[in-house]
Parts: sequence; structure tokens; C-alpha cells
Amino acid sequence: MTPHRLLILNGPNLNMLGVREKGIYGTATLQTIEASCQEKAKALGVVVAFRQSNHEGELVTWIQQAMGQQDFIIINPAAYTHTSVAIRDALLAVGLPVIEVHLSNIHRREPFRHHSYVSDIAVGVIAGFGQQGYLAAMDLACHHLATLHSS
Amino acid sequence: MTPHRLLILNGPNLNMLGVREKGIYGTATLQTIEASCQEKAKALGVVVAFRQSNHEGELVTWIQQAMGQQDFIIINPAAYTHTSVAIRDALLAVGLPVIEVHLSNIHRREPFRHHSYVSDIAVGVIAGFGQQGYLAAMDLACHHLATLHSS
Amino acid sequence: MTPHRLLILNGPNLNMLGVREKGIYGTATLQTIEASCQEKAKALGVVVAFRQSNHEGELVTWIQQAMGQQDFIIINPAAYTHTSVAIRDALLAVGLPVIEVHLSNIHRREPFRHHSYVSDIAVGVIAGFGQQGYLAAMDLACHHLATLHSS
Amino acid sequence: MTPHRLLILNGPNLNMLGVREKGIYGTATLQTIEASCQEKAKALGVVVAFRQSNHEGELVTWIQQAMGQQDFIIINPAAYTHTSVAIRDALLAVGLPVIEVHLSNIHRREPFRHHSYVSDIAVGVIAGFGQQGYLAAMDLACHHLATLHSS
Amino acid sequence: MTPHRLLILNGPNLNMLGVREKGIYGTATLQTIEASCQEKAKALGVVVAFRQSNHEGELVTWIQQAMGQQDFIIINPAAYTHTSVAIRDALLAVGLPVIEVHLSNIHRREPFRHHSYVSDIAVGVIAGFGQQGYLAAMDLACHHLATLHSS
Amino acid sequence: MTPHRLLILNGPNLNMLGVREKGIYGTATLQTIEASCQEKAKALGVVVAFRQSNHEGELVTWIQQAMGQQDFIIINPAAYTHTSVAIRDALLAVGLPVIEVHLSNIHRREPFRHHSYVSDIAVGVIAGFGQQGYLAAMDLACHHLATLHSS
Amino acid sequence: MTPHRLLILNGPNLNMLGVREKGIYGTATLQTIEASCQEKAKALGVVVAFRQSNHEGELVTWIQQAMGQQDFIIINPAAYTHTSVAIRDALLAVGLPVIEVHLSNIHRREPFRHHSYVSDIAVGVIAGFGQQGYLAAMDLACHHLATLHSS
Amino acid sequence: MTPHRLLILNGPNLNMLGVREKGIYGTATLQTIEASCQEKAKALGVVVAFRQSNHEGELVTWIQQAMGQQDFIIINPAAYTHTSVAIRDALLAVGLPVIEVHLSNIHRREPFRHHSYVSDIAVGVIAGFGQQGYLAAMDLACHHLATLHSS
Amino acid sequence: MTPHRLLILNGPNLNMLGVREKGIYGTATLQTIEASCQEKAKALGVVVAFRQSNHEGELVTWIQQAMGQQDFIIINPAAYTHTSVAIRDALLAVGLPVIEVHLSNIHRREPFRHHSYVSDIAVGVIAGFGQQGYLAAMDLACHHLATLHSS
Amino acid sequence: MTPHRLLILNGPNLNMLGVREKGIYGTATLQTIEASCQEKAKALGVVVAFRQSNHEGELVTWIQQAMGQQDFIIINPAAYTHTSVAIRDALLAVGLPVIEVHLSNIHRREPFRHHSYVSDIAVGVIAGFGQQGYLAAMDLACHHLATLHSS
Amino acid sequence: MTPHRLLILNGPNLNMLGVREKGIYGTATLQTIEASCQEKAKALGVVVAFRQSNHEGELVTWIQQAMGQQDFIIINPAAYTHTSVAIRDALLAVGLPVIEVHLSNIHRREPFRHHSYVSDIAVGVIAGFGQQGYLAAMDLACHHLATLHSS
Amino acid sequence: MTPHRLLILNGPNLNMLGVREKGIYGTATLQTIEASCQEKAKALGVVVAFRQSNHEGELVTWIQQAMGQQDFIIINPAAYTHTSVAIRDALLAVGLPVIEVHLSNIHRREPFRHHSYVSDIAVGVIAGFGQQGYLAAMDLACHHLATLHSS
Repeated sequence: MTPHRLLILNGPNLNMLGVREKGIYGTATLQTIEASCQEKAKALGVVVAFRQSNHEGELVTWIQQAMGQQDFIIINPAAYTHTSVAIRDALLAVGLPVIEVHLSNIHRREPFRHHSYVSDIAVGVIAGFGQQGYLAAMDLACHHLATLHSS
Repeated sequence: MTPHRLLILNGPNLNMLGVREKGIYGTATLQTIEASCQEKAKALGVVVAFRQSNHEGELVTWIQQAMGQQDFIIINPAAYTHTSVAIRDALLAVGLPVIEVHLSNIHRREPFRHHSYVSDIAVGVIAGFGQQGYLAAMDLACHHLATLHSS
Repeated sequence: MTPHRLLILNGPNLNMLGVREKGIYGTATLQTIEASCQEKAKALGVVVAFRQSNHEGELVTWIQQAMGQQDFIIINPAAYTHTSVAIRDALLAVGLPVIEVHLSNIHRREPFRHHSYVSDIAVGVIAGFGQQGYLAAMDLACHHLATLHSS
Repeated sequence: MTPHRLLILNGPNLNMLGVREKGIYGTATLQTIEASCQEKAKALGVVVAFRQSNHEGELVTWIQQAMGQQDFIIINPAAYTHTSVAIRDALLAVGLPVIEVHLSNIHRREPFRHHSYVSDIAVGVIAGFGQQGYLAAMDLACHHLATLHSS
Repeated sequence: MTPHRLLILNGPNLNMLGVREKGIYGTATLQTIEASCQEKAKALGVVVAFRQSNHEGELVTWIQQAMGQQDFIIINPAAYTHTSVAIRDALLAVGLPVIEVHLSNIHRREPFRHHSYVSDIAVGVIAGFGQQGYLAAMDLACHHLATLHSS
Repeated sequence: MTPHRLLILNGPNLNMLGVREKGIYGTATLQTIEASCQEKAKALGVVVAFRQSNHEGELVTWIQQAMGQQDFIIINPAAYTHTSVAIRDALLAVGLPVIEVHLSNIHRREPFRHHSYVSDIAVGVIAGFGQQGYLAAMDLACHHLATLHSS
Repeated sequence: MTPHRLLILNGPNLNMLGVREKGIYGTATLQTIEASCQEKAKALGVVVAFRQSNHEGELVTWIQQAMGQQDFIIINPAAYTHTSVAIRDALLAVGLPVIEVHLSNIHRREPFRHHSYVSDIAVGVIAGFGQQGYLAAMDLACHHLATLHSS
Repeated sequence: MTPHRLLILNGPNLNMLGVREKGIYGTATLQTIEASCQEKAKALGVVVAFRQSNHEGELVTWIQQAMGQQDFIIINPAAYTHTSVAIRDALLAVGLPVIEVHLSNIHRREPFRHHSYVSDIAVGVIAGFGQQGYLAAMDLACHHLATLHSS
Repeated sequence: MTPHRLLILNGPNLNMLGVREKGIYGTATLQTIEASCQEKAKALGVVVAFRQSNHEGELVTWIQQAMGQQDFIIINPAAYTHTSVAIRDALLAVGLPVIEVHLSNIHRREPFRHHSYVSDIAVGVIAGFGQQGYLAAMDLACHHLATLHSS
Repeated sequence: MTPHRLLILNGPNLNMLGVREKGIYGTATLQTIEASCQEKAKALGVVVAFRQSNHEGELVTWIQQAMGQQDFIIINPAAYTHTSVAIRDALLAVGLPVIEVHLSNIHRREPFRHHSYVSDIAVGVIAGFGQQGYLAAMDLACHHLATLHSS
Repeated sequence: MTPHRLLILNGPNLNMLGVREKGIYGTATLQTIEASCQEKAKALGVVVAFRQSNHEGELVTWIQQAMGQQDFIIINPAAYTHTSVAIRDALLAVGLPVIEVHLSNIHRREPFRHHSYVSDIAVGVIAGFGQQGYLAAMDLACHHLATLHSS
Repeated sequence: MTPHRLLILNGPNLNMLGVREKGIYGTATLQTIEASCQEKAKALGVVVAFRQSNHEGELVTWIQQAMGQQDFIIINPAAYTHTSVAIRDALLAVGLPVIEVHLSNIHRREPFRHHSYVSDIAVGVIAGFGQQGYLAAMDLACHHLATLHSS
């Protein structure tokens, strides 16, 4: 049986992780997070594609391209969480199951970060656990896919 | 007399038409729609340029480039309808007459789809008629241009 | 095969078209618009009933009477667009397909004209094209009915 | 002693009951409801006048005419529940006790149906019980009148 | 010189004046008010047409018919003040100068009575002075017309 | 055939009925109301359990326990009407048909009493009729159950 | 019998009348208006005190001093209409009858000018008639006082 | 070293899990979830106390009692998520780290379920993963405690 | 003459005072506050009953039981200030005079703490003075009762 | 040791106390209140300066002049409570501890009286106790200053 | 050619600059700022009048007096920025060009400081640069006047 | 000492300056503005990088790249001012001091242009002065940097 394929997408400014605002986002860089995810992927027996873009349009295109190529999308849309209907529409268009992840607890921050265009079309949401949130999302994605296949 | 030139712009995810969410958007692909528009263009004796982008910035640039090159813009801004002041500003900057088209009836959908940054600067709006809406928009654009020229 | 029957309903003050406020509504009178619609009806091979009332209750009654007598309703509810739940309920009660038409682009006008009690129960909406909007609505209504009958 | 006189008023589109949207309003026609009410009237020893209009102004006039002619008004204002200050003012003007009845449970429907211009000036409100709500309203009206007369 | 012609329109339930709710509206009946207005008309040398309707559509029609027949409209739209876009549109369509009058001080009453669809298109507004408000409106209307004619 | 079982639940402070605030709630005590309900139960051939609690959690538990033990819930949630999602969730969890009853007309009172967490999941709502509202609710509950069983 | 005493108060910037913004406020200066009012006072047989201040506190003090010295207050609070609770409280404290006057039709202007802290505690409101509004207010004040004295 | 102690609290109606509304909450009962958590606790080498209450006050008391007795609180406040300031205050008072868990994706449900009184004082939030969310929360809680102890 | 009886009620989490969050609530425990109140009671010659509960329902019951047993209620509803209509209704039901006290200045805290369901039915409110606020409330309650008895 | 110096400031219209609106504000005049405060000052061994102004600017200046001359400000800003950012800024600028006092219970009055520009920068708030509130504020101010000096 | 005359107006509490709240407003006193402005005036060859008042009415009067005496107004309305329609109206009345200056960045502060009654009638706004903002405003005012005179 | 480096960023459509909408934005092209800025840079002895993009993502990337390469960012985000959380986050991530500049006075335009995602994280804001605003921003940036270096 082919291993499950997970696409992990990261939105704008996540390439700056670990460089500044460590009080909010922690000291891990995006490279560290990707490494942890790849290590976890091995343990789970899945394939992970891990990408970041500052461009809303590029994220939209990557989501579209996931159709038929990926089994699950884990997305941290960062700033676009709160402003992008286009990413929402792309996720709706490909119809893959989605988990929304946030490094920080967005409910502790500015009010405009309390609304997400993704949450209500996702399987679920994880926020506030730093890179551990990505790893938990991978566990939950695999469990979700396993349940789908066994039912 | 040179034929009228119509620029038909399509926003993010419209390249996914006919692939998924057929219940909302119908089975026509964007290629089908373009073909119908080109066929109609011949009938109307006008020239149509037909484009799609997932990038807000690219749509902005295309609108800017229409200045002096096109006579009318028919735009389906898709998700950017509800979030893009930049597209609005580009349309204001070039000052060409605009028709806003939507495949689905946006008033039947989520409340955030009820507001458009384009409607109040357009000549008019057509929503809910699938690809027929594009063809109607072409008719109306030509009528609009004919009226301008005859007056 | 019997020709399709279209009911075109016009709300309050549309009998004043062409008399005043020509800057907003144009110079065509309602008689002119009806004549254009009847001419178009001949071209399309359909039967058009064209009516206007200043009374909300009369419009409600006419919609009710369309049940079984008409195949499609094209309605410009004018001021009642924004205030009449009764017209909405009548349209829901008869269950005929509906197109909402506005002569002017209501999105350019007072905020209370931006909400419609009809839009979300209509097939689609056309606004801003003057009498051309009526003719486009007739095209789209016929296409809609043709699709229903062929499917 | 003269029997109590109850005026039962029905707003727009209630003449369409039982014809369509049976899922919401049930299969009883307005004639069936009137018959049940008249039968109940006999049992209660009261006189019932039962009317329906699609015209807000006609309902206003009927309410005004109830002054001195009726002892109680049971009203299902239908769509006018949510939009008519005129009916509210007519009820205030005649000063008769009023019960507001709705066939469907308006709290389950569109948000604009959650507000009533009548509720806060009525004795009470009954919603969601179909024609049984009318019969209950008659019971409660009679009890209300009996209490008034005995006190 | 022909005398100025004033149309005084009264909205729903104003035919109930003096009968009930005297605490709010005073003891004068609409007949009393009309008589005072006619008497004042004689003093001012103007012709007054004085009408009342419970029907929004009838008021709309009367306003339309004033075009070319009247010089000024004094309107107490009563309940329709707060709900009728149709009356607003009729007033806009005929383009005659308008004074809005209210017997009671609407700012002391329910919040929904604080908004008027007529005020911002009227010359001015008078509220709270009972029938004296009508007489003051006649004075002001005549002064307005005199100024127009002298300038 | 076993008689229908109705659970009548009363929320906080209803044990104070008839003691104070008689202007709003009348002079009947909760004991009086229960007696009337039991008397009516005999007439209707149904079994009534009648309870009151000041504790939101206790009401939740009683609703849960109704599962399989009762056929219908008539609830006057009193203050919890406006604040308790937990009672709503309990009602959703047991899935029994529900009627919401209020002694007073909540639409005449403070604005925070105009919203109910129960209304949109109930069969219907009765408000403003004092203890008569309970008896009417019993009639309507029995009619509802009879309809279910006969269909 | 002593003549009625009217205090006419004018708020900030009304001393600039006739100097600028003539399109909105007309060409009459405050001196012109005062002269008209004094002339009218003679005709009516009343005594008028006419004052203007740019200071909220001074207006408050003048209102307080009116207690026992004046019979009626006609006030054009100008900008303080929309911001001064202190003036409202002063008017409540002295308890004299009040008419609120505005030269321009405030409903045609910025939304923050649509709310008045005075309207709901005044006898009535007159807006949009320039200096004629002051004269009408004097008539209405005298009528009000006459009615009080005769009843 | 003493094992970490986790308190897992469950709010109202969670004792009904697996009995009804399986479409929303799944088929697992609260007993099943507790068993999974205890099994996971063994694997993680931690001690779990697992409790449920329908009483807001009891949940408050349990949280207070956790002070000095527990190292971490995982809470699914269910309906009280949206209405209980008391639970928030109790969590603030004991000052233990908290994870908020929801079985369903609350962002897909009624708007009143989109606000939580707990989220902004929690370490993080997990929603939408059924009982797997509890297990993920246990992992994340242990990681959080390990980080605290190692730093 | 029997001494006045004051009931001092404390809402949820006030039993945690002095243990944590001393920056907000100070170092006094609830026991310290009760001791101060009892000491003050002796000085004032009144009898104080002092209670705390985490249960909304228990607070409701205690308020009900105060009827005829107490002369005045001083209540610090804590978190229930902002969420409990049931406590409001209990206070309305017993009709005793009430003072609302808060240890902290609730206006400095989260916006949801700015609204109280008790303030508008209380004699008055004291907030921000720690335990001194309780003692001041006792003074003011005694003064209130003394005034009642002397008048 | 020098005695503490308290500045007691009174906003607009408080000079009218005891003259009118006794139902809301009681029969005490401002002179009575000042006398009570001076008497209490002697008992407490503090010096009180007691002032009133109708001018926002004068209150601002007095607050500024308190810097270095006073130890505490007790302010009843009256109408300026709800409208004056300038008084707030003056209080912030001098940085003295402040108690906000209101004679009436502002929560029982018009909604615009529910917001205060002072509350969140004050030590605390007392409302609803008439002149007793001033005396309680003096006690609490002295206690506050004593605590500062002893810590 | 006469030098340009600039009026620099300062609102309430700006006379307290440099005394307290240095973290927000810096250490410069208003005297320092005036000196810098006068020095800059010499460099620019313009005449500066520099004033401060705590009285809204005095600021209004000074603005009125600028008519014909000044060429440009630079205003820091401080607290009155957010509350004074009277200052706005005075600026509209004199019709001089205006620049609005704020020492602090008002967008970083309380939400009520985000709205200004002056911004939309000013040439432009400068905020956040301390006294440098005044100097920049002088540069921009002179450039504005130079452009006017040269065009 | 190395000269200060200023990055001047221009958002979407600013490349269209001077081409259309000259009434709002003036006749200067972006090239003119850049030339003025470079000229000013020479006078100030600083280095300026001047860029424009229609792509939100590209602006984000340029901001990120400024880290360690630039000392100050002057940004005119144009349409993205009102919609881009990503640009805000990039500015927060690099942590350089920022001045927000707008050519037009955004407070005079559509309401959606009144909110900025940048203002509250900027040193300050300048709006309404056309290209002069850029030059003023350069002055203020240099002053800001000079102050930092001297302190």
C-alpha cells in the first residue's frame, strides 16, 4: 500500500521564524520545524512535502496542485488566515481534508487574528503549541486517513 | 473602424472550474467558457483577451496594462471580489468601463461573499448565470460601447 | 410545443421612468421598455406579460396568480426590493424561477439599497444596465428554461 | 349575554397555504384552518370573523374597523410581522387585546423573521404549531376575555 | 398670478386621530386638522388638497399625480416614515419641495421611529407640535415658494 | 396503549411565583400551576412529571434523564432561557420534542430577554399567557404526539 | 397679564452666520435673525432674550439662570446638539418647555449630525428652514404657552 | 521523580456522548474516552484524573481543588465554553497551564459557539478531532511540562 | 428595636482570595474580609450573614431565602455579575434593597466585565476598593435602612 | 505630619442640586453636600477643597492645578463623565489617585450614561448613594492614602 | 510680499507637556515646542502665532478670529480631536487650510482616540513624531501656501 | 560613520501615479517622487532604496530582506494598507522603525480606507501631502535615527 502523502503549507513570514519575535513564536526556525516533521514522517511511514510562500497566489496554486497528488493538507496560513478567501476557495476546490495549525495561540492576540477563513472548512484546528502543533497535526491527519480507509 | 477590444479577467481558482464543486459552479471548465466567449466575440465582431490568475498582483498589473490597449473590462474577481482593494484601485486607475460577473449567485452563499469592492465602481453586475453570464456581459459591454460612440 | 411564458413585474415608481431623474434611470419610459421586451419576445418565441404596480399587495397577488400560468418571473421590485418580505414569500410560495433586475447599479446608491430580500432566492441578479438588463434577463431566462427542459 | 367576537386576521401569502412549501407550513389550506376555527367557535360559543389580505393597507383598515365591533384580535401578520409599523400602529390605535400567531416556528428561519413589530404590544405569542396554534389562540383569547369580565 | 397649490398627505392610521391614544396624539381628529388647514389656506391665499390613506401604494400614486398639479408637498407619512422606500422614491421622482411633519415628537418614542426615509430629501422637518405643526408647515412652505419665485 | 408522558420543567425563581412581582407574573403559585397541569393531565389521559430547579446543572441532568422515560418536554427555562447553552445542548442530546413556555410576554421586557437559546430547537413557543400557557402547551404536546403516532 | 418671556439660545459658530458656508446656512447673519425675532416678538406680544456662545459651560449657565426668569427656551445648540450631555442636563434641571431649532436640515449632513441629545426632551424639533425656523418656533412656543395657561 | 498529574475536565452533556448526535460527536462514549486517556497515561507515565459535571459550580470547585494537586488541566468545557466567566476565573485563580479541547469543530457550528471564555488564557486549543484530540492534548501537555522542567 | 440584618453574598472563586492573583485582588482572604465585616457589624449594631458559593443556583436560593429574613443584601456576584440573569431575577423576586460590590475596578479589566446584570436594579455600586468596599457598603446599607425607617 | 489634602470636584449642573429633579438626585443642595464633606473632613483630619464648574475647560485647569497641591481627587464629573476626554487626560496628566462618584445610579438611566471616560483610570467608582457617596469616598480616599504611606 | 501667517493651536492639557507622562509625550514642554516653532518660523520667513487653551469654546473663538488674520492653521486639538464638533465647525466656517498634528501616535492608544472630527476636513495629518511633527507641519503648510500662490 | 539607509516601499498601483486620477493623487509620477527622494537623500547624507510592487508577497519579501540591510522603512502600502496582515507581520518580524505615508488624505475617502494595519506599529503616520509627505518622512526618519544614535 502506498504511504499517505501529507502536504504541509506555511504562509507568509513563517520563513522568519526563530529570527525575531521569539517571545511569540519560539526559537525554532522553519528549517528546524521541517526537519522535525520529516523525522516524524519517517516514524509514521508517510511522505511529507513541506513548503512556504509569502505569496497568496502561490499558496493557492500549490493547494490546487495537491489535487490527486496529496492525501491531506496541513496548513498554517499565518497572516492569510485572516484575510484570504482565495486560499479558502482553493481548499474547497481540491476537497482534501485539512488541518489548520498555528504556532501561537491566536486567541491571545489582536482581535483581527480571532477570525479564520479556514477553520470552518477544516477537519479541525490546533493553535498555541509551537512546532509540537505540527507534529500533533501529523498524528491526527494519519489517524483521520486511517479511519477513512478502514471505514 | 477598429473592433472593440474586451479584456475578460478571471480571479483565483477559476482555473479549477468543472473539476470540483460542480453543484455550485457547473460542469463547464474555464477553457469551455473561453471558447464560448471567443465564439461570441466573432459573432459580435469584437476582440477578446481572456486571462486567469491566482495572483492579486498579477491581476492588478493586467488591469493597468489594459490602459490604452482595451476598451472594456469584464471581470470575475472570484475570491478577490471580497478582499482586494488593490484590484479596485487598479480599475479606478485605468478608468475603463467594467462589468462584474459571477458564475454563482453570491447572495446565496456565506455572508462575506455579499460585499464586493468592485460593484460600486462597475457599470453593472451580473451574478448567478454560470457561463451564460459571461456572454450576457459581452452583449452588454458592446451595447455600452456602442452607446458611448454614438453619443 | 407551447412557447415559454415570462412574467415581467415592475415595482413602485417604475411608471415614472423617463419623466424625471434621467441621470439615474435613463430616458426610456416603461412603455419603451415594454415595447423592447415584446419585440425581443417575438425574436425568442416566448410570450411576455408585462406589469407594473405601486402596491406591494398587488405585486404579491400577481406573483401568486403566476402559479401554473407562467414559466419564469423577471422582477424589478424597485423600492420593494429592500423592504418587502411579502414579495419574497410570494416568490417562495409559487416556486417559479426568478431573475432580479435593476435598471441602475444599486451598489452605487444609498446603503439601504444594497440589501435585497429577493437576491438569495433568485436564479441570479442583473443590475446597472438600464433596459438592456431586461433584454439580457429574457435571454438568460430562456436559456435557463431550455436547460431545464433538455435535462 | 352577547357572545365574544373574535377577529382572526391573516397576512400576505397565507392564501397560498397547503399549495406549496408544505414542509414548512403543512398541508392545511387557509379554508381548512378557517373551518376548524369556525367549528371551535361554535364549541366556545363565540363569533369569529376570519379574513386574509395581501395588502398591508387593507389589514390596517380591517383592524381599525374592529374598534367597537370586535372584542379580540388574533393576527398572523405573516411577512408583515417583520416590516409593518402601520399594522402595529393600527393595533395600538384600536386598543383591543391581541394574540400573535405563526404557523411555523419563526425562530428556526432567516434572522429577519426573528423580530416582530407586534409581539411587544400583544398579550402573547404562539408560534410553531400550525393550525393548532389558531385553536389554542382562540382558547386563550376566550380565557383572557372571561378574566377581564369577571374581574 | 395663480395661487400656490399645496398637497397635504397623511399616512396610515391618521384617520384614527382623536379617537384613541389621545395622550400621544391629542384630541384633534383628522377632520379638525383638515379644517384648520383649509382655514389657514384661505388666510395664506393658497389651495390645499388634503388626503389620507392606509395604503403605501396609494400614497405613492398620489405623490406621482402631484407632478405638474401641485407646487409643494407637506407629508406626515406616519408609520411609513420608517419603512417606505417607495414613498421616498416617489418624492424623488416628482421632485417637488417637501416638508415632513409629525404630530408627536418621534424622538421620544421607540428607537425604530427615530429613522425616517424622508427627512434627508425634504426641505425640512417639523415634529412634536400636533396640528400646529401642519399650520407651521404651511407657513414655511409658502415662504419657501415665495423665495423661489422672487429669486 | 401506555399514556403519553410529559415532563414539565421550570427554571430558576419560578418557585417564587405568586409571592412577589405579581404585576408581571400573576398571583398563581407554582403549586397552583402544577395542580392545574395535573388536573389537565387527567383530562387528557397523560402522565405529567412537574419539576423546578434553580440549578442549571440540575435542569440539564433532568433533561438527560428524560431520555427513554418521557415522550415530550415542556420547559419554562426562565432566566436560563437567555443564558444557558447547556440546557440547549441537553435538549439536543435527548432529542425529545420540546415546547418552550413563558408566563410573561418576554418581548415586552428587557432586550436581553428577547433572545432564547431554546426557541430554534423547539417545536414551538408560547409566551404571555400565565398558567394558561402551560395548559395550552399540554394540549399542543398531545396533539403533536398524536400526529406522530398516527403518521 | 405679564407677557411671555422666551429665551433664544444659539450655540457655537452661529456668530459666523452669513459670513461663510452660505450654501448651507444662507446669507442671514445672526444679527439679522435676532432682529427678525425681536420684530416677531413685538407682533406676538412677548419678550425675547437672544444669546449666542461658543462655550458649552456658558450655555449651561444661561439655561440654569432661565429658571424662574423665562417661560420657554428655543435653542439651536449647533455643534453641541450632538455632543453635549451637559446642555441636556441643564434643560432637564430647569424643566422649562424647549423647542430645538436647526437652520439646516441636519438629516442631509454627516451621520454624526443625525443624533441629538436634546430632541427627546424637547416639546418638538424644527430643522431645515433657516431663520424662518426661528420664527415658526416662536409661534409654536406661544401657542404652547397659551395652551398651558388656558388648560 | 513523581509523575506529572493531569486533570481532564468535561463539561455539561459530555456524559451523553455516544448516545445521540453521533453525526456531530461520534460514537465513542465518555467511558471509552476515559479508557483511552488512562491507557495513554500509562504509556506517558503520567497520572490522569478524569471528571465530568453538568454543574458550572462543581467544575469551578474542581478547578480550585487542582491547585497544588495537579500539574496541568485539560478541559473540554462544552456548553460552558461560551457562557462561563466563572470557569475562566477559576482557571485564572489556580494558575495551572491549560489546554482547551473540543470534540467537534466548533467553528462549523452556530455562531455563539465561536467565542470561548477559555481560549485566550489557555496554552492552546485543539478542536475537531473527537477523542483523538484528548490524546493529542495529553501529548502536548506532557511536552509542555517537560519543557518547563528542563528550562 | 431589632437590629438590621444584612446578608453579604459572595460569588464564585471569591473563596480563592488572597491565594493567587494578589496583584488584582489584594492579599486579604475571604475569611479576613468576613472578620472585618463582622467587626464592623458590631460597631454598627447590625447582624451580618456572610456566605460564598461557586454555584449560581445556590446563590439564587440564598437570595430567595433572604425574603423576610434579611433587610438588605450586599452582593459581590463575581463572575456571575456578567452572566447571570437568574441572580438578577432572584433579587427582583425578593425585592430587598441591594448594593453591588466589586473588589477590583471592573472597568479596568476585560470588556465583558463592564456589563453587570445587577447594577441597574441595585441601590448603588461600589467597585475597586478591595475589602474596604465591603465596609463602605455596610455603612451605606445602614444609612439606607435608617432613612427608610425614619421616613 | 501635614494632613492629607482632598480636592472634591463637581461637574456641570451640580449647582442645581436640590432645586429640581429631586426624584433622581434628592433634596440636598450642593451647599449641604459641601457642608457634610467639610464636617467629615474635620472628623478625618484632612483638608478639603470643594469646587463646581459648568465649564469643561475650568475643570481641566483645576485638575492640572491640583498637581503638587492636593493628595487625592474625588470627582463627580456629571455630564462630562460621558463626553470628556479632556478631563480624562487632565487626570492622567496629574497622576493623582482618583475616585469617581455619582449621586444617582447611572446604570438605571439612559444608555449613554453607562459609559464613563474616568472609571478605568480611577482607583474605584461609587454610584447611587447621594451625598453619602461623597462621604464614603472620603473614607476610602483616606484609607487609600494611609495604605500608600504605610507601605 | 507679506510673510505667510501661521496659527498654531494647542488643545487641552498640552500645557502639561514635559511634566508628566513623558513616556508617551516626551520631555519637551510646550514652551520648548513654541520656541522651536518660532525659530523655524524665522528660517521659513513666516509669522507664527502659538496658543493653547483648555476651553473648547476659546479654541472655537480663536479659530473664528483667524479669518482674514491668518493664512493657515496647524492644530493639535488633543482630547477635543475626538469629541468636538464645534472645533470642526469653526474650521469649516473660516475655511482656512488646516493641518492636524498629534505628538503621539494616536493609533497605538485607546480606540476612542482613533477617530478624529478634524482629519477629513484637513489638508493632511501628521501623528507620532513629537515636536518634530510641528516643524514638519510648518514646512508642509508653507509648501501648501507656496503652491496656492504660484498656481 | 556609514550613512543611514532608508528603504522606501510603494504598494500596488502607485506605478500609475500621474497618469490618471490626478484630482486625488496629483500630477507627479512615481519617477518624479523617486527623483525628489534621491535628491533629498543627497542633502541629508543618507542612502535611499526606492521600490514599488503590485504583489503583496513581493512587498513582504522586500521587508524581510531589509533586516540588517536597512535602518528605516518608509512605506506607502496603498491598497494593502487596509487589507494586508502579511505586510504588518513582516514589519513586526524585521523590527525596523517604520513611517507610514499616504499621498492622499485617506480620511476623506471611503470608510474602508480609514483603517490601517500598519499605523499602530509605526513610529508615526503622514497623510495628505502628496510627494511632500515622502520628503517630510525622510526628515523625520533621519531625526528619529539621529535621536536613537545619540541616546
